[in-house]
Amino acid sequence: MAANSERVSAVLAVSTVIFSLRNDDQTGDIASVWLPLVRRVRQPFEGCWALPGGPLHGEEDLAFAAARTLNDTTGLTPRYLEQLYAFGDASRSTGAERVVSIVYWALVRSEEAALASVGENVRWFPADDLPSLAFDHKLIVEYALWRLRTKMEYSRIAHAFLGETFTLAQLREVHEAVLGRPLDPANFRRTIEGSGAVVATDQYLTGTRHRPPRLYRYNDSIDLADAGPLPRQQHPFASPAATSPAASSPASTPAAAPVRE
Amino acid sequence: MAANSERVSAVLAVSTVIFSLRNDDQTGDIASVWLPLVRRVRQPFEGCWALPGGPLHGEEDLAFAAARTLNDTTGLTPRYLEQLYAFGDASRSTGAERVVSIVYWALVRSEEAALASVGENVRWFPADDLPSLAFDHKLIVEYALWRLRTKMEYSRIAHAFLGETFTLAQLREVHEAVLGRPLDPANFRRTIEGSGAVVATDQYLTGTRHRPPRLYRYNDSIDLADAGPLPRQQHPFASPAATSPAASSPASTPAAAPVRE
Repeated sequence: MAANSERVSAVLAVSTVIFSLRNDDQTGDIASVWLPLVRRVRQPFEGCWALPGGPLHGEEDLAFAAARTLNDTTGLTPRYLEQLYAFGDASRSTGAERVVSIVYWALVRSEEAALASVGENVRWFPADDLPSLAFDHKLIVEYALWRLRTKMEYSRIAHAFLGETFTLAQLREVHEAVLGRPLDPANFRRTIEGSGAVVATDQYLTGTRHRPPRLYRYNDSIDLADAGPLPRQQHPFASPAATSPAASSPASTPAAAPVRE
Repeated sequence: MAANSERVSAVLAVSTVIFSLRNDDQTGDIASVWLPLVRRVRQPFEGCWALPGGPLHGEEDLAFAAARTLNDTTGLTPRYLEQLYAFGDASRSTGAERVVSIVYWALVRSEEAALASVGENVRWFPADDLPSLAFDHKLIVEYALWRLRTKMEYSRIAHAFLGETFTLAQLREVHEAVLGRPLDPANFRRTIEGSGAVVATDQYLTGTRHRPPRLYRYNDSIDLADAGPLPRQQHPFASPAATSPAASSPASTPAAAPVRE
């Protein structure tokens, strides 16, 4: 298939998919997945909505570029950006050059999402109801959404949307919001408890009329932001004094690399 | 951090990590994870072992290049290569150019692994006991191994190492081999059955002295090679007449893209 054996160069770019759960004003209490988009100010696709991102600069590392472009356009600074996928097929290129986009993603809680600098050119959209997007960004978002929903069934990705401790009901509601369908509470409890992903604490959630439900936390043996052997990059704009369970993990070193759950 | 705003180009390369389980001749029955390495025949790192791979050619898609380089060096043609990670940080580059390596991986059963064209420059090594590797390939293997072991706890990756049906004991043995530690059979059964990942069939494994154990199969609602919305690329050298559960999935189209579980 290859017409020649010349080495192939490509322009490097990054994009970010930032998911947050929010209540849908129209449907009421049911939370759904939203993400921020940026309106392009130059050709191609000028005026079109697109994922935050941009080309790599100078000697930047990939994850750094993702954090920089995201912050520059939306003001968002999620603590950990995880590499989602590299889109680099030949058919993506609109011009003479091949462009490889390394896509990063993060899950942010609604309090953090509220800090985004929204305006005429930056806005949150429901992931299931997007406008037309530039390039192949719609495919990228669909893929990210699928990964989110698939991982929900087998991992602790909901941790990103919850606090340090939570009830099983809260955890189930997050799963239901992401999956977009109700889950049987008894089956959910059995699956989660059997997976060993969560650990019961000796604390209970007070302040309700009912019997206080027990609080759980994630099993720390696999840190959400654990990248295994890859060096972890703390957000370049985060305060060095900030502490987190992730920062105290033995895998934490101040070298540049994205992290993965 | 960026010294200039020039767009960054990089040379594109691919590497492949192919995991297989095999019995360790020294330890006996205990299976462990092995992978093929190729000895480099040119500088840099001439004579060093490295992952199969090479630069992208012409108008190739990333997954196609991964399949081509793997086949050219080892003769292996796993049906589905999944994108693992893009390694592209500035510190990787040994020369003036930045090299971005998109790493693909696959799990192959021992029957398929046996088809590899091993020789002086192609050999299988135990993943936990590697020789010195070229570039940052050791880090890449460590990362792939960590991903394998982490995914084992929350997904059905063992499917790749087993047949269409298997007993829970066989499934547990695969998990133990990959994780490198024994698992309590009762807990394992509870977790797997609670996860909904496997479904009991009405068949039993005969031929043993004991009561025939029930055979299970994976729950097909999520195909192992399902890439969600991404078009799936059948192996370029696979026979078009070959059938598989994955090929009959609605997501199957003959476009080029890697697949993900």
